[in-house]
Amino acid sequence: MQVALVMGSISDWPQVQATADLLTELHVSFDKHVISAHRMPQTLQHFGETAKAEQYQVIIAAAGGAAHLPGMLAANTTLPVIGVPIQSKALNGMDSLLSIVQMPAGVPVATVAIGSAGAKNAALLAAEIIALQDLDVATQLDAFRQQQTAEATKSNEQLQ
Amino acid sequence: MQVALVMGSISDWPQVQATADLLTELHVSFDKHVISAHRMPQTLQHFGETAKAEQYQVIIAAAGGAAHLPGMLAANTTLPVIGVPIQSKALNGMDSLLSIVQMPAGVPVATVAIGSAGAKNAALLAAEIIALQDLDVATQLDAFRQQQTAEATKSNEQLQ
Amino acid sequence: MQVALVMGSISDWPQVQATADLLTELHVSFDKHVISAHRMPQTLQHFGETAKAEQYQVIIAAAGGAAHLPGMLAANTTLPVIGVPIQSKALNGMDSLLSIVQMPAGVPVATVAIGSAGAKNAALLAAEIIALQDLDVATQLDAFRQQQTAEATKSNEQLQ
Amino acid sequence: MQVALVMGSISDWPQVQATADLLTELHVSFDKHVISAHRMPQTLQHFGETAKAEQYQVIIAAAGGAAHLPGMLAANTTLPVIGVPIQSKALNGMDSLLSIVQMPAGVPVATVAIGSAGAKNAALLAAEIIALQDLDVATQLDAFRQQQTAEATKSNEQLQ
Amino acid sequence: MQVALVMGSISDWPQVQATADLLTELHVSFDKHVISAHRMPQTLQHFGETAKAEQYQVIIAAAGGAAHLPGMLAANTTLPVIGVPIQSKALNGMDSLLSIVQMPAGVPVATVAIGSAGAKNAALLAAEIIALQDLDVATQLDAFRQQQTAEATKSNEQLQ
Amino acid sequence: MQVALVMGSISDWPQVQATADLLTELHVSFDKHVISAHRMPQTLQHFGETAKAEQYQVIIAAAGGAAHLPGMLAANTTLPVIGVPIQSKALNGMDSLLSIVQMPAGVPVATVAIGSAGAKNAALLAAEIIALQDLDVATQLDAFRQQQTAEATKSNEQLQ
Amino acid sequence: MQVALVMGSISDWPQVQATADLLTELHVSFDKHVISAHRMPQTLQHFGETAKAEQYQVIIAAAGGAAHLPGMLAANTTLPVIGVPIQSKALNGMDSLLSIVQMPAGVPVATVAIGSAGAKNAALLAAEIIALQDLDVATQLDAFRQQQTAEATKSNEQLQ
Amino acid sequence: MQVALVMGSISDWPQVQATADLLTELHVSFDKHVISAHRMPQTLQHFGETAKAEQYQVIIAAAGGAAHLPGMLAANTTLPVIGVPIQSKALNGMDSLLSIVQMPAGVPVATVAIGSAGAKNAALLAAEIIALQDLDVATQLDAFRQQQTAEATKSNEQLQ
Repeated sequence: MQVALVMGSISDWPQVQATADLLTELHVSFDKHVISAHRMPQTLQHFGETAKAEQYQVIIAAAGGAAHLPGMLAANTTLPVIGVPIQSKALNGMDSLLSIVQMPAGVPVATVAIGSAGAKNAALLAAEIIALQDLDVATQLDAFRQQQTAEATKSNEQLQ
Repeated sequence: MQVALVMGSISDWPQVQATADLLTELHVSFDKHVISAHRMPQTLQHFGETAKAEQYQVIIAAAGGAAHLPGMLAANTTLPVIGVPIQSKALNGMDSLLSIVQMPAGVPVATVAIGSAGAKNAALLAAEIIALQDLDVATQLDAFRQQQTAEATKSNEQLQ
Repeated sequence: MQVALVMGSISDWPQVQATADLLTELHVSFDKHVISAHRMPQTLQHFGETAKAEQYQVIIAAAGGAAHLPGMLAANTTLPVIGVPIQSKALNGMDSLLSIVQMPAGVPVATVAIGSAGAKNAALLAAEIIALQDLDVATQLDAFRQQQTAEATKSNEQLQ
Repeated sequence: MQVALVMGSISDWPQVQATADLLTELHVSFDKHVISAHRMPQTLQHFGETAKAEQYQVIIAAAGGAAHLPGMLAANTTLPVIGVPIQSKALNGMDSLLSIVQMPAGVPVATVAIGSAGAKNAALLAAEIIALQDLDVATQLDAFRQQQTAEATKSNEQLQ
Repeated sequence: MQVALVMGSISDWPQVQATADLLTELHVSFDKHVISAHRMPQTLQHFGETAKAEQYQVIIAAAGGAAHLPGMLAANTTLPVIGVPIQSKALNGMDSLLSIVQMPAGVPVATVAIGSAGAKNAALLAAEIIALQDLDVATQLDAFRQQQTAEATKSNEQLQ
Repeated sequence: MQVALVMGSISDWPQVQATADLLTELHVSFDKHVISAHRMPQTLQHFGETAKAEQYQVIIAAAGGAAHLPGMLAANTTLPVIGVPIQSKALNGMDSLLSIVQMPAGVPVATVAIGSAGAKNAALLAAEIIALQDLDVATQLDAFRQQQTAEATKSNEQLQ
Repeated sequence: MQVALVMGSISDWPQVQATADLLTELHVSFDKHVISAHRMPQTLQHFGETAKAEQYQVIIAAAGGAAHLPGMLAANTTLPVIGVPIQSKALNGMDSLLSIVQMPAGVPVATVAIGSAGAKNAALLAAEIIALQDLDVATQLDAFRQQQTAEATKSNEQLQ
Repeated sequence: MQVALVMGSISDWPQVQATADLLTELHVSFDKHVISAHRMPQTLQHFGETAKAEQYQVIIAAAGGAAHLPGMLAANTTLPVIGVPIQSKALNGMDSLLSIVQMPAGVPVATVAIGSAGAKNAALLAAEIIALQDLDVATQLDAFRQQQTAEATKSNEQLQ
């Protein structure tokens, strides 16, 4: 698989499903996992340590609140890790965002927007990375971009 | 040792030293450790897993920015973990605070104030927990409280 | 009783009930109280001063807005006080959180997350403290942790 | 005395001194006190309960961080209580402000601005209340207002 | 009338009605006005300038968003002005709060909490000021406080 | 004069001077005024009401904290009013920004960035409005833009 | 056309329609466009570069989240650009506001309030600019202001 | 070159230099550019459109305030774009962060932390992406990680 799609809780799946759908549309192969940083820390540790050997090229990790999953996966691998801040209940995802993006120097997480926009953009960012070596994904990505430009352009025409 | 005093970086020591000094004053035994969640994840994992067997009763963990150390230690032990949000550079510790306090249900971190006030209060909170079974610490704690009340009262007199 | 579960208003009970349920599940004995810091300040003062003599080991205090209950109880006792920031109407609990966690040096409050996650974690944190001397609670706590890890692991299997 | 000027810590005095100076200028009689809500809770309770009998007409209370002093004084008296949020170290007084202004329904605190602007305005607000029955203070207040209008007008002329 | 109850828009009335009801309950006489700072600036100016001559003792001003009504009334009178930050749509009243409470030195506004809690507390604060010279209001205020303490105490009994 | 440059306090002048300098550079005629919304409300009211008759085309108003000057000028004129949020002490200008930009529907203020960037951009925005009918200003504005593009381009070359 | 009304996405139209309606009411001629900064960057670039030649006098640009449309249009023209921060899902438009208003020195955007209030005020601000040379628009604007003052005054009467 | 390192202003260079130094250390080839989104929009557009043909594999873009550079580059290419939020003056980089990370669905920016931590992590993230196909960079990256783990471990030893 090219991408490991990891979420901190099965309750994140409704937001993360958009990531999965878009990865499929872009011809990026992936598998998906629930790994709670706080409930399954050994699994997290093992997953991070073996991700490279498992031939993943990118990890996408979605989590909310005091979101430690993306950063702790990144701490255990040199694969690029994309962090998706789940929109949380009380603070609307500001806690998720700061917990993911404000990584100290030394271990990066590629952070995208809070919630559903970020869930989609995580798939696109993963595809952009993979497209550097995978012509099929590159082609799909170009097509996706052209399509969304066409749709935006069309919506302008319909507004007139 | 009764308390493990852990910090995410040696650069946190100037803020954490107040914790160490106060633990000493309160007759709480402790040792101190630098364990970077992101640079030393295996050490973190091992430390959490073995903390109970090491006879610690409380862990104090100080970290800044996307602060994952307290929560990840808590994920690996059922000992009480006290989290100290270090005052960070850009966001003044608001990122540290939210990364520590907003733990999802299932794994708690006892969070104290940002920066130096929190560093001192972490020592006091640890002492309060240990005092439940340690009469000496309980005595020191009472004395500390009386002393600080006396000092505040005296400052009032001096103001007149 | 091992724990005093105190809330600032009867309107907090729907959020605090999760704390009570979890304490019961973990075999922690407790009683529950409405003590409004601002409407019943003498009761608050008396409760804090006598909590130790009443043989409580931990106080859990939930309050919202300009939440003074946890800090003022802590000011009157050396028992560990756990503060639960209730999710408030206008500011989503950010006011509750800062009013509880930002205690000045000298009197700590062990703060957990805003709202329902914090309500559950308050029970777990109290249990962790009590488990240091109560083998039954320690056993329940271990079982709880194993169960939640098992559930998270199972949700991963079901996702496949 | 007409006004009780209370601060949570002697360290607040540099900010609160402006309040004292302005009260003097406005012919408002006052005395000043350090009463730490968390270090001197019994003193706080007693002070609130007896403030009316002591013939105070207004209480000004300045505090920082998780600032409980103004609200807890207000809980113990029906005298008007003015709260001054001290500019705190990490969060610049946003914690002080929310801890003071977000009082739940039933017990009000008249909150002014964070820091030195608020310290001065607390004196003016107290004078406005007292001026309702004290002609001398009313006269001083009018003079103060006219003077500051004159100064602002003069600064405009100097700018030309 | 003892109190002028002013709101920036008729759309604020649902939140301000609680102020009116409580003033009535506390035997405080008042009249009510819609004065939009931005749509009726001349009315605002005139109202502020003549408020003292109209024998008002306190002005309560409620407004939302970039809320200029309380501060501009205060600029035109030396009567105490109480500001109520209306809970706004996008920013939940944080904009209203900062626009009202952060008055520069020289002209104070006595600010209460955002939204319905503040609406009630504005009435109580006005009553506290008036009670300094009005024995009937003072009596009502004491009764109100005792009643709410009794209700909170009763809710505690019912919880058992 | 084409532009009235108004500041809430002479203490804003160090930040506002950049506006004046840039207006001069762009050949926009202006005069400058200190009008404190809270200390000189009658002057403010009069200034707003007569600004159109005075032949101003644009008003630039700079103020900090609970910044009411831009909005209250806008309430008294249909001239375009540009608001500059002064960087305040405690809250870094977030209070100034929200007090200026969050105007309710009906009376707009054209808000620019906090502090020095906004002070310069206020001059440019005023020039853009005036340039719609003043060819000389239009020419200066084009030249300014070309110059700053040239400088940025040159800094790129120097980096190499 | 006097005004180009541009939105970043057709999904912004429900909020932007109020702008269009008010422009029509004020006799300001306009056309409307969907130009996504991120999906149609070439269109954006071209639109900005040619806007002056197209005889527009003002551009209104509405966008949400990381809102780049207003600033990038402003970068390509010296026409006044009014930015409307769309109320976003997770952060309620605070992201939109800061992305639009915090433009660095050199290229201004005239920013109005988040959401529907801003949408209306954008039309009024555009009309104020155009009214400097268009007597009909000036007349409509005066009538609009008088009408809204009359309505506010009437709502006051109805409250009595 | 493997990486294009772009900054919005030459004044960002002191913060961005850390990125350049780390890229060099990791054997990643790069060139550096000042491209102001607002002062050089045509250059930005051209750079984005041709970046792929120029054989870049990753773009790193640093900008502050209303930071449009990373998002607008991303809009013009399907190369992965890493955004570095520069710590801004008034709002400490919160404006930069939200302007970069909150990209709407369709065009992602891989965002790292505010300021110097982010500047370093941008280099590491770029190296992680390039290391997927460049064994030398992969080796350097592993060495870097081992070294920083060793240093953190050593600082722990020195603390004892």
